[in-house]
Amino acid sequence: MKTEILSKQDLLKYWQGQRSLTRKVIEAFPESDLFNFSIGGMRPFAAMCSELIGIAVPSLTSITTNKPIKLDEKSKFTTKEELLMQWDNDTANINALFPKISDAQFQQRFVLFGEYDFKIQQHLFYFIDNEIHHRGQAYVYLRALGIEPPFFWETL
Amino acid sequence: MKTEILSKQDLLKYWQGQRSLTRKVIEAFPESDLFNFSIGGMRPFAAMCSELIGIAVPSLTSITTNKPIKLDEKSKFTTKEELLMQWDNDTANINALFPKISDAQFQQRFVLFGEYDFKIQQHLFYFIDNEIHHRGQAYVYLRALGIEPPFFWETL
Repeated sequence: MKTEILSKQDLLKYWQGQRSLTRKVIEAFPESDLFNFSIGGMRPFAAMCSELIGIAVPSLTSITTNKPIKLDEKSKFTTKEELLMQWDNDTANINALFPKISDAQFQQRFVLFGEYDFKIQQHLFYFIDNEIHHRGQAYVYLRALGIEPPFFWETL
Repeated sequence: MKTEILSKQDLLKYWQGQRSLTRKVIEAFPESDLFNFSIGGMRPFAAMCSELIGIAVPSLTSITTNKPIKLDEKSKFTTKEELLMQWDNDTANINALFPKISDAQFQQRFVLFGEYDFKIQQHLFYFIDNEIHHRGQAYVYLRALGIEPPFFWETL
């Protein structure tokens, strides 16, 4: 039997490992800096988190129900505590939705948010890349604030 | 036959797509800022690139020859042009070395740099994550310098 280089379970674990590190980065921010601090005209990290939240569970819902959705990046949280609660709810929702995608589906194309037409595996890696990208930016914010960020390899 | 959620070829294409975007980010930096600009006591982007270069081809060489190596993050370049030349040489070397890893090997453990004991697929994703992470930091540097970075989704 051919060995898979990455199983569906590996991919879920990998994604959740990244999400677990992002949660630590959210926690590392002082509340007001989370919502207000920025560099070079970029968004504060809370707004980036709002984007990540607008992508993850809504995309999995769209893929697993085969229903189109619109991208909604508006925050449903106004405090760090609410953001962390939403993050944890999403962790559970991702664990529930992800297994509903069949192995075969990962190589099939799917139009997300009415415009992004890629293979489902490509969408998944985009979600993860985009999160690592913004979290990397949050590391610079933390360093600029004189705060030691979590270790990058703490993804579990 | 069971469908792979990600083929070996998909993973190589994904990695090289990320490397292609990182190359554009290197190009976007003015020469002196590439080597000198930093925020919050972090390294300039050239030093981060030197780390990425110290990981990618040396790791693949170690894995495909089954020989231990030491991590060497020292720059072998002193100009942006030399860095880009090294980047392009590495692109070719990665394309040559990557196919030598068998599918079965991806799920096998390998000790890299004398201490990191993970499955080969986990090493590969770490290389990619680490690159996206530092490139995300370079986006903040560029924004702080008033320079528009390349579009994040330009990974091809």
